[in-house]
Amino acid sequence: MKPRIVQNIERPDPVLAKKLGEFGTATVHEAQGRTGLMLPYMRPIYPAARVGNPAVTVLCHPGDNLMIHAAISVCRPGDVLVVTTLADSTDGMFGELLGTSCHAHGIAGLVIHAGVRDVADLTTMQFPVFSRAISSMGTVKETPGYVNVDIVCAGAIVHPGDIIVGDVDGVVVVPRQNAEAVVRACEARLAKEAKNRERLRAGELGLDMYGLREKLKNLGVEWV
Amino acid sequence: MKPRIVQNIERPDPVLAKKLGEFGTATVHEAQGRTGLMLPYMRPIYPAARVGNPAVTVLCHPGDNLMIHAAISVCRPGDVLVVTTLADSTDGMFGELLGTSCHAHGIAGLVIHAGVRDVADLTTMQFPVFSRAISSMGTVKETPGYVNVDIVCAGAIVHPGDIIVGDVDGVVVVPRQNAEAVVRACEARLAKEAKNRERLRAGELGLDMYGLREKLKNLGVEWV
Amino acid sequence: MKPRIVQNIERPDPVLAKKLGEFGTATVHEAQGRTGLMLPYMRPIYPAARVGNPAVTVLCHPGDNLMIHAAISVCRPGDVLVVTTLADSTDGMFGELLGTSCHAHGIAGLVIHAGVRDVADLTTMQFPVFSRAISSMGTVKETPGYVNVDIVCAGAIVHPGDIIVGDVDGVVVVPRQNAEAVVRACEARLAKEAKNRERLRAGELGLDMYGLREKLKNLGVEWV
Amino acid sequence: MKPRIVQNIERPDPVLAKKLGEFGTATVHEAQGRTGLMLPYMRPIYPAARVGNPAVTVLCHPGDNLMIHAAISVCRPGDVLVVTTLADSTDGMFGELLGTSCHAHGIAGLVIHAGVRDVADLTTMQFPVFSRAISSMGTVKETPGYVNVDIVCAGAIVHPGDIIVGDVDGVVVVPRQNAEAVVRACEARLAKEAKNRERLRAGELGLDMYGLREKLKNLGVEWV
Amino acid sequence: MKPRIVQNIERPDPVLAKKLGEFGTATVHEAQGRTGLMLPYMRPIYPAARVGNPAVTVLCHPGDNLMIHAAISVCRPGDVLVVTTLADSTDGMFGELLGTSCHAHGIAGLVIHAGVRDVADLTTMQFPVFSRAISSMGTVKETPGYVNVDIVCAGAIVHPGDIIVGDVDGVVVVPRQNAEAVVRACEARLAKEAKNRERLRAGELGLDMYGLREKLKNLGVEWV
Amino acid sequence: MKPRIVQNIERPDPVLAKKLGEFGTATVHEAQGRTGLMLPYMRPIYPAARVGNPAVTVLCHPGDNLMIHAAISVCRPGDVLVVTTLADSTDGMFGELLGTSCHAHGIAGLVIHAGVRDVADLTTMQFPVFSRAISSMGTVKETPGYVNVDIVCAGAIVHPGDIIVGDVDGVVVVPRQNAEAVVRACEARLAKEAKNRERLRAGELGLDMYGLREKLKNLGVEWV
Repeated sequence: MKPRIVQNIERPDPVLAKKLGEFGTATVHEAQGRTGLMLPYMRPIYPAARVGNPAVTVLCHPGDNLMIHAAISVCRPGDVLVVTTLADSTDGMFGELLGTSCHAHGIAGLVIHAGVRDVADLTTMQFPVFSRAISSMGTVKETPGYVNVDIVCAGAIVHPGDIIVGDVDGVVVVPRQNAEAVVRACEARLAKEAKNRERLRAGELGLDMYGLREKLKNLGVEWV
Repeated sequence: MKPRIVQNIERPDPVLAKKLGEFGTATVHEAQGRTGLMLPYMRPIYPAARVGNPAVTVLCHPGDNLMIHAAISVCRPGDVLVVTTLADSTDGMFGELLGTSCHAHGIAGLVIHAGVRDVADLTTMQFPVFSRAISSMGTVKETPGYVNVDIVCAGAIVHPGDIIVGDVDGVVVVPRQNAEAVVRACEARLAKEAKNRERLRAGELGLDMYGLREKLKNLGVEWV
Repeated sequence: MKPRIVQNIERPDPVLAKKLGEFGTATVHEAQGRTGLMLPYMRPIYPAARVGNPAVTVLCHPGDNLMIHAAISVCRPGDVLVVTTLADSTDGMFGELLGTSCHAHGIAGLVIHAGVRDVADLTTMQFPVFSRAISSMGTVKETPGYVNVDIVCAGAIVHPGDIIVGDVDGVVVVPRQNAEAVVRACEARLAKEAKNRERLRAGELGLDMYGLREKLKNLGVEWV
Repeated sequence: MKPRIVQNIERPDPVLAKKLGEFGTATVHEAQGRTGLMLPYMRPIYPAARVGNPAVTVLCHPGDNLMIHAAISVCRPGDVLVVTTLADSTDGMFGELLGTSCHAHGIAGLVIHAGVRDVADLTTMQFPVFSRAISSMGTVKETPGYVNVDIVCAGAIVHPGDIIVGDVDGVVVVPRQNAEAVVRACEARLAKEAKNRERLRAGELGLDMYGLREKLKNLGVEWV
Repeated sequence: MKPRIVQNIERPDPVLAKKLGEFGTATVHEAQGRTGLMLPYMRPIYPAARVGNPAVTVLCHPGDNLMIHAAISVCRPGDVLVVTTLADSTDGMFGELLGTSCHAHGIAGLVIHAGVRDVADLTTMQFPVFSRAISSMGTVKETPGYVNVDIVCAGAIVHPGDIIVGDVDGVVVVPRQNAEAVVRACEARLAKEAKNRERLRAGELGLDMYGLREKLKNLGVEWV
Repeated sequence: MKPRIVQNIERPDPVLAKKLGEFGTATVHEAQGRTGLMLPYMRPIYPAARVGNPAVTVLCHPGDNLMIHAAISVCRPGDVLVVTTLADSTDGMFGELLGTSCHAHGIAGLVIHAGVRDVADLTTMQFPVFSRAISSMGTVKETPGYVNVDIVCAGAIVHPGDIIVGDVDGVVVVPRQNAEAVVRACEARLAKEAKNRERLRAGELGLDMYGLREKLKNLGVEWV
């Protein structure tokens, strides 16, 4: 329960993380049994924002970004910051200066359950940010918090080192130890979808392709 | 009250529907006495999305898109799917595979009181979607529902075959039997607005053009 | 308490207003002690929308834009309309015709605690609008209200003649009499930030630059 | 589309309406196939508020209660007013004076998709009100609307003469022509529930009573 | 713009404040031209909570109640604390210990644009509190703020010394200098309402009493 | 990732759980460093609802209460059910029949991130329920889920066997292994608060008691 900064965490295989990022949120979420999805109010600040990287987690007092500074010091290139607050807040806890610092250290992106500002600058530098709000409200650097503990962010549990996959469809968390299994499940899913896509493109109905006519009949749905 | 799929509906004159789509939501809504507007949280997934097409209505269990598959089988080219759920949900009930199927059958667009996913792909294929959320949360295909019954979608009543007009200003429903009257009212309105636009562009005040100085006086508003 | 239109207000030095607009919302808000920020639901209708101009304030009955017409008649070129309603509303109180009229009179933009419509047209004419909603729901011109009285807009107090600074980070209000002090504080802040930016770009940590290691220690945060 | 007041509507058998009111919202909603439920933000102003009565529907301009006065003139004793607005509003469109008038005419209650005020007085007179807000914001009597047309209220379609069932669990609409079938379905449901209640009270598990152990097994759920 | 505590403010005539409190929110709000109402999410923690007292205003950093302590030191018996925060927060900034301190100093109540806790205790001591949330989330005492400056609370401007009227219908602010005029307007309104109440109780329709039949006709509303 | 029901969990010392329940949410939350609080929309269905009991956790598909039935079969007397859903839902997943079953098995209460119904009956039987909504919308029993896995409920992580403390101030989660330390911290806190209460009751200011005058001075707050 004491405020603390955990400096060393286990990270996933970067090849797996990269692959998951390329599969994208919707595919990954399906492939891991529809778990780990952040709530839909977590949105990218520009449509092309995309991540597939290990999480360094940050738990802040609302309106206070002291612990983000601490977190940057324990990040390695390729990490993504995942920030949440002890109570709901939309304050702009992250802006262009912090983005510049992240760039300098090779940090791959930010997921924040609060607000961000300087979004024009952050977009120009193509720094992928997922947030619940855009707000100019600044923050102080006064209150202790936590780095690299388990957190809840937008309804999802995030352990340090979990893989964060984000794109225009939202953000999903893949537990580190599941990375390889989820990659395989994604590949299987994509292969299957490719076949289905061809059949649908050719005009076959989902009703027939998925065998739903029989199901509708069994459920007592009438065709009138 | 029994789950059912109505296969044949009356559709409006496609020329009228097309014209209404070109007039756009704001004009059509005014022209039909400010009725039929969906609530403002119903938004296009890309700014240029636009529809003016007859509705095939779908009423689903939340988190279950079985009836969307059924609805596609009764659509004709040029129809737009209007989907709602029995209880509020933001689940991503529609994605790129269903979009591909819609494209194959000439379906003109989707209005959905729930979430969608694969929005990058749907945008690339320029499939116009209006939704209340973007979410990767997938759905099952297990529960019966209804196709082509009267539904409520984002606060508006939609009968099968009503004309759905949607653009960046939102979505409005034109009852099928009103189509011709609303087209005429739109034309009259646009003609009047064209004149007013010229006067306003020339610097005339709305206060004078609409005769509001007298009204302000009668209402007891003082000029200080 | 009687409805009234105040025709003459004191306006700030336009050079100061323009400078504040160029500094942008986040910088100005910080520079004036984090006061005057509108709530984050006040958003531009297109990302490049930007204002730095004196406010003409308008207090309307919800769903009634009569007083906006009155307000335009007392505006001078370079003013920005700041509109709020007596009770919460998302109705589309402003559209392309009013935008045309504003253009004709050199009005610089609109901040409205309600909805707007014709956003495609308003975007094409590059008329900067900040609103809480997009809605086609039209309004009447029937009910008295106020022009150029103190109002509350999205949680911020606005006096007539205050400077409204808006961009993609939101909207902030600078009291007219503070304009010069805030400009100076912005300049000081930017100079300081430029130095910090260089140090952060070079890889220095915020933790060191701001002297936060000592603070963390004093707060009892442990490095594990 | 023209504003109008429909004076004569068909009403349901009052005995059926009364029975439905006694069954309560949850039972009635289940018995009619989980349709017709208003959204959960529609709440009673006091916990014991309860209705089971035919609807006189009212469609108002937001912030304008003119049509409520019109509607009272066409009510018969035992009717319940169901009021909605053309655009979202929380204004207090109904207070103690209107409640007194309703009492004088034997009106049985109010369901309103807006605000109410004088809730202490309305509670004292035990006038059942279901609303989405409590607000002192008064309204004007200026704008035309509709009485006894089909409306949407809190997500549910209400036809004039439909039966409104409301209690602390919310509000559900029973189409007039379904009243008898729904009463019978409620009775069957209650009889079945009484038996189930006894079994559950005696300690039998729902898992066994509903045969869910087999289902869990078929769904692949593991007992660990 | 510097943090400060204003120790001496002008207060209204306590007899007028008491009268306004007895008239109640709905009457006072109407009597002062429907201005000054706080948004409807500001609710009493128990139904009988009621105030009619001068405001001592407090502007806090979110999650920090330092300035409430400062404000209590400048209160006089009969004052009501009106607290808001620089950014939206629902943290529980006030609990039973602060309530005990307020009791000891004769403070009459609290209106807070944040959360409160220990609501069972505060209800037992019958300390009237109006808040936007109930939350156990505690606060720090670290950040400077303001006492007795103009603030915005739940959408209403509050000047120090304004009269706060609150009851189960919400909270309304009466500017100090308007107190006498509003009291007179309330008395006139109540006298008129008493007559109207009698007529309505006797069965006269609002339609006739307010002369609305003619208005409906002029507005083109048809009786069908 | 496979659906599963964990039948045996470690439970905390019941004496500690009971004590924590008696301390109440606000005290416990403070005592464990302001962690573990559920968001403030989680509210009791009646003001006296109160729990201090170990959690059996349930993760359901939205709109499906199959896993609640499974969970009851693994509960021991004195457990509290903590239920959440894979995606946001307000459906009424729990009603009087399930309440009867819980009573029969000595289950102490329910915390549910969804809706409940039959709240009049549940209140009469004094079954403490904390929920985010009241809704009559029923659910199916079709989709697999999880019992006794780590879940997120209203923003808080809940491990099976954690202690759930709930009252009118909200709900807080105490990790099982912290129970004894938190009890001690609560006792220390209450002892300190008792002293402070006496001093505040005697009229001492918080400003003096907490030594805040010096702090205000150091922060640069001016007394005017």
